[in-house]
Amino acid sequence: MPIDTPLCGLLGIRHPILLAPMDVIAGARLTAAVSRAGGFGILGGGYGDRIWLERETGKLKGAQAPFGIGFITWSLAKQPELLDVALAVQPRAIMLSFGDPKPFAPRIKAAGARLICQVQDEAMAQQALEAGADILVAQGSEAGGHGASRTTIDIVPAIVDLAAGRVPVVAAGGIGDGRGLAAMMVLGAAGVLLGTRFYASQECDGAEEAKKRICAARSGSTTRGIIFDLSRNNVWPAPFNGRCLINDHARRWQGREMELLQNVKAVAAEYAAARASGNFDIAAVIAGEAVGLIHDIPPAADIVERIAAEADQILLGRRNSSTALKA
Amino acid sequence: MPIDTPLCGLLGIRHPILLAPMDVIAGARLTAAVSRAGGFGILGGGYGDRIWLERETGKLKGAQAPFGIGFITWSLAKQPELLDVALAVQPRAIMLSFGDPKPFAPRIKAAGARLICQVQDEAMAQQALEAGADILVAQGSEAGGHGASRTTIDIVPAIVDLAAGRVPVVAAGGIGDGRGLAAMMVLGAAGVLLGTRFYASQECDGAEEAKKRICAARSGSTTRGIIFDLSRNNVWPAPFNGRCLINDHARRWQGREMELLQNVKAVAAEYAAARASGNFDIAAVIAGEAVGLIHDIPPAADIVERIAAEADQILLGRRNSSTALKA
Ligand SMILES: Cc1cc2nc3c(=O)[nH]c(=O)nc-3n(C[C@H](O)[C@H](O)[C@H](O)COP(=O)(O)O)c2cc1C
Ligand SMILES: Cc1cc2nc3c(=O)[nH]c(=O)nc-3n(C[C@H](O)[C@H](O)[C@H](O)COP(=O)(O)O)c2cc1C
Repeated sequence: MPIDTPLCGLLGIRHPILLAPMDVIAGARLTAAVSRAGGFGILGGGYGDRIWLERETGKLKGAQAPFGIGFITWSLAKQPELLDVALAVQPRAIMLSFGDPKPFAPRIKAAGARLICQVQDEAMAQQALEAGADILVAQGSEAGGHGASRTTIDIVPAIVDLAAGRVPVVAAGGIGDGRGLAAMMVLGAAGVLLGTRFYASQECDGAEEAKKRICAARSGSTTRGIIFDLSRNNVWPAPFNGRCLINDHARRWQGREMELLQNVKAVAAEYAAARASGNFDIAAVIAGEAVGLIHDIPPAADIVERIAAEADQILLGRRNSSTALKA
Repeated sequence: MPIDTPLCGLLGIRHPILLAPMDVIAGARLTAAVSRAGGFGILGGGYGDRIWLERETGKLKGAQAPFGIGFITWSLAKQPELLDVALAVQPRAIMLSFGDPKPFAPRIKAAGARLICQVQDEAMAQQALEAGADILVAQGSEAGGHGASRTTIDIVPAIVDLAAGRVPVVAAGGIGDGRGLAAMMVLGAAGVLLGTRFYASQECDGAEEAKKRICAARSGSTTRGIIFDLSRNNVWPAPFNGRCLINDHARRWQGREMELLQNVKAVAAEYAAARASGNFDIAAVIAGEAVGLIHDIPPAADIVERIAAEADQILLGRRNSSTALKA
């Protein structure tokens, strides 16, 4: 019996498991695979590459299973016309993260799509609710990629209390297995949004070497900061910074961000060359603390099914998540 | 029906809720109150004030309900004879945090007490298991007081997997209500250890003004760092630092720790005066991210009962933790 939450009805899905719109690595292939498996795939609109977006949304056009498309809000604000490209393929939802969703909400709603807003604190959640968000994603600092400082165990109940049942709250950050989904539901979330776990899937458009590093990485081997953004000349507004695997480059510049900035031209050239050649000792593998729970690169459908089944068993009390639970 | 876990049997308690050994504010009164309510009170041995320890352990001598006594391991190493003071009153357990427990384990075991070790990463957990720990406390960075950088949602499953059922794992850091206990059990923990929540209790020996500030503080208003330790000349070994409420003093020195160190004599004098006079704009209220969940100062027994009852309801599926859970 699958776990049914208000989120499932709202999005027309079987499992309350959402794919995070990871920049260009959550392409149409991964999005479709997650949606076909009964989760909710969200295409990674990212920083807004129009050619990429037209191509990938084109592949999703007319898809049977519902899907979404995500944007980085402050980046979308620079090319608002990209929202039309997205809405043209009739996504079930648009997800906006990192910035005020208000300017985009009316067009999204008018097109009949749901508005999902990812937030990192109560003020952002309030802003999203005022803009008419249908679903809030409460993102903890354990998350891969950009985010802020509040942790999952702190921010999820805080946003659940703030939403007070008006909209479902989805938990994000550090979740990689069925225990995590079950724990988040117990905290009051209606589902989870997963990035890092789906990075290590067959359909993800990330580099094979990056996926392998995610599998090999142990818990505690990621870091949140501004080093990779500085190194790729990608300046984010406060309070956001990014989490990635600790590699040689991160170790080299840790605590020396000022110096990096003073030498940014040379560093950026070196960094760009490393990205181009797939040298992940220098280029960052963008991933979160869930790496400790990830040891394989299966089809995305397996990930959805495993997590749903494990959470289901735990929540229905059919199986203890460890020897600990005897109730 | 109370939640029964292996922890309950091991410690002889009704509810898997442990009081954190908070320095001198978890005195005999609070310890006894938590234990009488069916949780497990742990007296805060802290930095090892012999007069205080003899007085407070004296009050616990012969208590009906089982209790424990906690020490800061690296501090105990400087006065190892204090362990005898503790063992003399026959605690059910000794809890050691922050340092290698091995030198003390044999005396603890010989006295028939259980050894509880609080850990912040896998290497420390391994060390504790090798020393013969009977119970591991996995502490996330959300915790009030000293700790390290890994968060609760990350460290709890990691230590549960490492323990692999050999010993029960207790979760600590950012937990303040029954949702938190239930979520931690779903992650595989056998119970929780709470500091900040019990700080705001009637029996806690903390200042009234500090308790009021904990109630008033919102989630997101604490910070982890070295400012309060520097200011009270209390140098901790890496990787540990401390979490407290953000106050004027924290804001003033944030990011200027070097300068603080250069002016430490004047700052320390000002800080000591503030502590003596209960001026919490300067002196730190040591508390964790759970402050967002805390709005009252009830008797400790109420806290134990509320949390146990709420978790029980959630885990038995009798009540949804929010509108989200419909399974
Ligand atoms: C490789 C990667 C790229 C990401 N890119 C985006 C993005 O473009 N837009 C966005 O809203 N979130 C992005 N995120 C963050 C996710 O939305 C999500 O919050 C996060 O992945 C959840 O935490 P987890 O990685 O622990 O599952 C990205 C995450 C990763 C791992
Ligand atoms: C005021 C205060 C004092 C503390 N003192 C100690 C201590 O002396 N020894 C110790 O092992 N832990 C100490 N801790 C940490 C606790 O053991 C525990 O890990 C923490 O309180 C759990 O997180 P929570 O505060 O979110 O409940 C202290 C915590 C607080 C809030």
